[in-house]
Parts: sequence; C-alpha cells; structure tokens
Amino acid sequence: MSPRLRHLTTLEHLPRETIERLLDRAEALRDACAHGTRKLDVLAGRTVLNLFFEPSTRTRTSFELAARRLGADVINFDIGFSSTSKGEELFDTLHTLEAMHLDAIIVRHKHSGTPDELVRHAMSGVSVINAGDGNRAHPTQGLLDALTIRQHRPDFDNLTVVICGDIRHSRVARSDIHAFSTLGIKQIRLCGPTPLMPTAEEFPHCRHYDDFDAAIDGADAVIMLRLQKERMASIDLPDEAAYFAHYGLDQRRLARAAKGCLVMHPGPINRGIEIAPDVADGAQSRILEQVGNGVFVRMAVLNEVLAR
Amino acid sequence: MSPRLRHLTTLEHLPRETIERLLDRAEALRDACAHGTRKLDVLAGRTVLNLFFEPSTRTRTSFELAARRLGADVINFDIGFSSTSKGEELFDTLHTLEAMHLDAIIVRHKHSGTPDELVRHAMSGVSVINAGDGNRAHPTQGLLDALTIRQHRPDFDNLTVVICGDIRHSRVARSDIHAFSTLGIKQIRLCGPTPLMPTAEEFPHCRHYDDFDAAIDGADAVIMLRLQKERMASIDLPDEAAYFAHYGLDQRRLARAAKGCLVMHPGPINRGIEIAPDVADGAQSRILEQVGNGVFVRMAVLNEVLAR
Amino acid sequence: MSPRLRHLTTLEHLPRETIERLLDRAEALRDACAHGTRKLDVLAGRTVLNLFFEPSTRTRTSFELAARRLGADVINFDIGFSSTSKGEELFDTLHTLEAMHLDAIIVRHKHSGTPDELVRHAMSGVSVINAGDGNRAHPTQGLLDALTIRQHRPDFDNLTVVICGDIRHSRVARSDIHAFSTLGIKQIRLCGPTPLMPTAEEFPHCRHYDDFDAAIDGADAVIMLRLQKERMASIDLPDEAAYFAHYGLDQRRLARAAKGCLVMHPGPINRGIEIAPDVADGAQSRILEQVGNGVFVRMAVLNEVLAR
Repeated sequence: MSPRLRHLTTLEHLPRETIERLLDRAEALRDACAHGTRKLDVLAGRTVLNLFFEPSTRTRTSFELAARRLGADVINFDIGFSSTSKGEELFDTLHTLEAMHLDAIIVRHKHSGTPDELVRHAMSGVSVINAGDGNRAHPTQGLLDALTIRQHRPDFDNLTVVICGDIRHSRVARSDIHAFSTLGIKQIRLCGPTPLMPTAEEFPHCRHYDDFDAAIDGADAVIMLRLQKERMASIDLPDEAAYFAHYGLDQRRLARAAKGCLVMHPGPINRGIEIAPDVADGAQSRILEQVGNGVFVRMAVLNEVLAR
Repeated sequence: MSPRLRHLTTLEHLPRETIERLLDRAEALRDACAHGTRKLDVLAGRTVLNLFFEPSTRTRTSFELAARRLGADVINFDIGFSSTSKGEELFDTLHTLEAMHLDAIIVRHKHSGTPDELVRHAMSGVSVINAGDGNRAHPTQGLLDALTIRQHRPDFDNLTVVICGDIRHSRVARSDIHAFSTLGIKQIRLCGPTPLMPTAEEFPHCRHYDDFDAAIDGADAVIMLRLQKERMASIDLPDEAAYFAHYGLDQRRLARAAKGCLVMHPGPINRGIEIAPDVADGAQSRILEQVGNGVFVRMAVLNEVLAR
Repeated sequence: MSPRLRHLTTLEHLPRETIERLLDRAEALRDACAHGTRKLDVLAGRTVLNLFFEPSTRTRTSFELAARRLGADVINFDIGFSSTSKGEELFDTLHTLEAMHLDAIIVRHKHSGTPDELVRHAMSGVSVINAGDGNRAHPTQGLLDALTIRQHRPDFDNLTVVICGDIRHSRVARSDIHAFSTLGIKQIRLCGPTPLMPTAEEFPHCRHYDDFDAAIDGADAVIMLRLQKERMASIDLPDEAAYFAHYGLDQRRLARAAKGCLVMHPGPINRGIEIAPDVADGAQSRILEQVGNGVFVRMAVLNEVLAR
C-alpha cells in the first residue's frame, strides 16, 4: 500500500494507488451521507485552520464543512487579504500556529509554491493542505473532478477529456491534468487562445487545440475554465461575446461531443462568457455534482492526513 | 394541527395556530434555559449557514447562538457586503450551497423578496429562513415582539399597540403588524412623519397618526423604530432634535400611555433621536427582554423547520 | 484559598496565590495535552464571545482555541474595527450580548479601562476577560510570560528580568511587571529611549536604563517589545537601523546576559528592528513556547472564571 500522506500540496508525482485510495474514501463517505450519516467523529479533538491569503468563500466553506463533518474544530484565521505575507513573516505565522498545537493548516496563497514552503519550514507534525497556490496546483479540485468523471465513466482508458479556457494561468487545469494522467485517462485535449495556452513542453502528452469545435469532437467530458476578465486584454479578441463565440460552450458545440458528454466547470461560472446558461443548467451538466463531491473529497483528504 | 413550516420568509398569511406554536415553543425553550438547560442536541449533525448580504452582527449572532444551542453546526458564509448578488448569480450561490448538503440557509438581503426567490429556486430540501429582506419582512423580529408582549399582556384582544417612526421602510413594522393582526391584538396604531408612513391601503385595519401624543394615548405597548439618519432629508424637519420633539419617546409622552405600557425597540437604539435615554433604560423598557426572546424565537423556528 | 475570579481585567492587585493558581492550572493543562488530552468538556454548554475592537488574529485565535479545547462554543462578534464603540453605545452592546445569555466576553479595545467599564456596567453574571486595553493591561500575556519563565527558572527570588523597548505605551510591559512583582522576581529592569519609558513614579521598584548593554548585563531573561513604527517619529533616532543599534537584541548583547538567558517577545516580531533574526530563531529563544503557553494560560483563565 502506498504510504499515508502527511500533506497534500500537489497531485503531481502522487502514485495512482494514493489517488485511487482518496477517491474510494470520498465515495464511501458519499454513500454514508446518502444513507443518513451526516457527521462522524474520527477527527474529534483535532483542530483545522483555514489560512486563506486569497478570498474564496466557496472553497473555504467546503473545507470547513468537510472538517466539521469529521468532528474536527475549525478556526478561520482571518489574515486580511491586503496582507501579502511571505518569507520570514509567513514562516513566523506558521510557527506561531504550530505552537498553538494545530493539526492541519489549509492554505490558499497567490504565490505558487507557498504550501510546499510551509511544509519545508514546519517544525511540528502539522499537516499542510493546499487549497490553491498561484497558477500551480489545486489538488482537491483535481480529485473532485476525477471523482465526478469516475462516477459516470469509470472506463478511464476509453475516455477523451477536453479542458477549455485559460489553461496557462489555471491551477485547476494543472491539477486536473495531473490527476487524469495518473489515473490513465486515454486522451487529454487542451483548448484556448494561444496566449492562454501552456507551452508545448509542459504537458507533452496532451493535445493542443485552438479550434474548440475540433477539440470537443467526440469528447466524453469537457471542463470549462472560468475566464478572469482581466485576461481579455491579453488575447486577440474584441470582447467577451467574441470569446464566447470562439471558446464558449453552447448546445451546438456540445452536440459535437460524444453522447452524454459530461459538462464540468470549477465555478463560479460566468454565464454567457465561457458557458451558455442552458448548457450550465442542462441535463449533461455535472457542475453541482462537482460541488457536492468537493466536500467528500476534502473529507477524504483530511481523514488521510489526520487520522491516527 | 397546522402543517409544519419548511421555510420562514414572512409572517403574512401564516395561520394563527402556527404563530402560536412557535411562540409556545420559544417559551418552553426559555423555561428550559432558566432551569439550566443551556444546550440541546435536537439538531446535532445539521448545518445552518448564515448568508448575510447586509451586515448585522446582532441578528447574525442571535441566529448563530440559536443554532448552536440546538446542537447544529453554523457556517458564516462571508459574502462580502459590496456584492449585490442577485438573479442568476444569487441562484448559482444557492445551488452551490445546496450541493454541499446544507440544512438551512438564513438569509438577509437588501432586496425585498429575495428569500422567496431562494425558496422558489431551491432544488433540494434546504430550508430558507428570512433574517430581513429589504423593507418587506423580518419574521423572527415579528415573533419576538409578539412573544415579549404576550409574556406581559396575554390579553391580546384588550391591547392597543403603537408603532412609531419610519414605518414605510421598516420590515420590522411590517412583520410586527402581521403578527399582531393574526394574533388578535385589538388595535394597532401607526405614527410617523407623512413621508415615512405606509399608504392607507397597505394596512387598512391600522389607525394612522401624525401626532404621537394622540397615538400613544392609553396605549399598552409602544414600539419605537430606529431612524436611519439618511431619512432625515426626506422629512420636513430641520434636525434630529426636531424629530425627537415630534416623534421621540420621552417620559412625558410615556405618561400619556396606559399604566405599565411596554416600551420596545428592535435595536440598536439611537439615544435622544427616537427614544430618551431614561426611557430606554427605564423600568418599563422591554428592549433587553426582546433581545433575549430573539434567541428563543430563532431556536423555535430552526427547530420547526429542521426537526425530523 | 484566594476567592475565585469572576473577571480578569488586570493582574494589578491580584494576590500571589491567585496568580500561582492560574499558572499551576495552565501547567496541568499543558501536561494533559502532552499526554494526549486534546479536548475537555468542562465548559460544555457555555458560550464565549470574542469582542475585538482592535484586530488581533493571533490573540483572538489563541482565545478561540482555548475556549474550544474546554468544550465551550465560541462566537466571533465582528464589530468592524472602524467602529470606536464607547460610552452608551458600548454599554448597549454589552447589555445586548448579556441578554443573549453569554457566559464570557473577551474584549480588546484601544481605550484603557474599557474592560473595567464593562464589568461595572454588566447586569448579569457574564465574565469579562481583558485581551488588551489601550496601554494599560494584557493580563493573559503577563501570565504566559510568567509561566514561560517559571518553566525554566522557578527560582524567582534569584532572577533579573529586563524589558526593553516602548514600555510607556505597552500593556504587555505593564502586565509583565505586575505579574513578576507579585511573584517575587528579584529585579526588574526597564530599558528604552527616554520618550518611550514610563515615569519613574509608575514603577518605583524597577530600575530604569537608557543603555541596553548595561541593562542586559547578567540578566536571566530579556523581553523585547514590538516597536510600533509610528513611534519612531517621537524618539531622537534617525531610522530603524539606529533603533536596532541602540535597543535591538543581537548575539553580542545577548552574550552580556547570564548564561542561558531566556529570550522572549510577545510577537509578532519585527526582525532586524527590535531583535536579530538569529537571536529570534536561536537556541535561547522562548518565543514559540510563549505562544504555546498562551493557549494553556487562557484555558486556565476561562476555567477559573466559568467553571461552576
């Protein structure tokens, strides 16, 4: 059996067995919840702290719910988002929190690599869980996306998945690609305007597309990324309507995908920019299933790193 | 027996039996607390979320205490009050929260009708409780005001109650009027400057007054509303001192009311604007009893909508 | 036995027996934690409210952890730090919170004396705990500093302790001096630029120094205070480097102290202003032990004022 994780900062280089163990546990927690088990006590007496240097009410809430449903106490350490804590100041904060005997720190930070720096500087047995760092990794999102696909299409070695949008700056895309690659998804296609695409070297096993119609052709799942509006300036398109025309998911494009193609989005969605409202709300949309799976995946991760 | 409530968005059209059941339960919880029962576990495993689009530390804290004293977990979803979430964006937030398996959402929003919109768009069994929407309703305030009066004067069919101040823009006044009318209070008198009075059509069974001395004459309870300072511009009075002279409650005016007239205010009070300090702190003031009853009423409401 | 405390607003005038009881209890809680007891239920059903009018994530978190580890519920009353609540407005807030049946209020306020004003105006059995008021008192910091010294050097009647920095404006220094004096520390030396020193009359039993080299000579513990950058203007030094040269703790100065001299700081530290990084992180630093002791001391205080 692969060793128990003490931290989760990225899915890169994680063994397939570890990822599958986390997904299996998330699935078991989902089943238990469906049968009425709303709260466990496996983490009773443990304290988890949310250390968010970027605001994200949704992700913070998902982690908070996950921790509480396992019986842990949760502290929201309101750091003030104007603070750009880094270097010694950040490590002093870490050591202060460790001295208070916390069990896990869930960190979001705009600088890529911050969670790993915390792991390197930690002096106690505290666990660090990455809730998103810069454009580098958002591992629980990668896990929940893999779980959502697996619930509908466990035949990963037959699947083609498209990720469309601002992949270059997306930690969601990177963690998705790491999860899907490790789990043996047959083909991963990346699509977006050239300035928002990763280099060819970063993911040599993925196919790159500029034409979304070509990318989605026959796909089994399509993950639409949120367009940060400040990115519009960097691409050669006049406005959001033009972006939607080229890279938005509407019913016409969805019809080019395989029958039953899963429609996914990490949220919050920009209706009419990256996805048409009737597709976001349509029968093939798995967006809300992703949100539900997010809580179960985070429970699985907390249980993995904290259970005695 | 009237059916169990699944949501509470307004007191309008609620059967008298339902309102009385909620008041009776609040009273029972108050008795239990007085006998030392500080915490129950009837809502253990349930999660309640505060979704406040307008800041209100007092009301949020009252709901949080109520939920915790029933054993529920409470999540404060810090939405950022600059956000004026509405329409699809609001419903996406609702559906995201539902997907996380929340049991109840306590919502405050500046737009009248938002809680009912949430009820209409909810896709799961989540309960919606209105903590104040625009100038339309603040049902738990209506209940706690009714409870406070009932504790002193259960003979509702003998009572005259005055509400004084900015009634036109007051959700407190509306929910009070709905509660008092349904419970059979004999006479409801409304008093305030003309631009701050409701239309004659809105509450045809209430008596309208411009002269507070006349309105308070022989009254059994008087509810003073908080004056939002930005309303001063809309009324024909030079300053707050003039407002107090016309519509403020002082000892001289209180002496015109019936002996033992209850003095009430939803808080926070503006001393010297709508109420004299010695009246707010005087022997007839029920203002702090209202606050205490607020927690018990909210426990009763949460218990009603969430108990299995 | 000295009577049980109902409030803790200052250490001044507390009997030595009371302070020692609190330190002994903190020590016992620390031992229990070291042996695996992470959570107790002695305060189950009790509710503690953080009422912070000045931001302090660290201290608030320390109190929140302390309360939860005793089984209490914790409410963070987010008052908004722009509010400078005082006088009647503050007492209305107090009475509102009391009406909600809270058991303890932990208050931080920029005005000296606010916690005592709350005690005087409280109408219920609520306990008030001072988490720092103006430049007057920070009693749990005084206790945790005394505990930290006692763990290493219980021979108080042999000890010389130096406090260095902006003593005039420091509630930490005042509570330290009160604790150390009552507990019989042999000699307390105060050092800092003249405009930041207290009057000679305030602490006649302490020795005053301008020369840090002289002050630290043979000392058994040295407590460095955080320099608020806005104080630089009031002292006759050109910049922070000059401050560090005169009043900063570096290895050269530390070598003048007694062997094994304890290095302490209430945090957060300004590296290179009041303390050299290699001293802050060095073998003699007790800064993180102070943080850990802070939680145990706050548990002891909550237990003292709230246990039935």
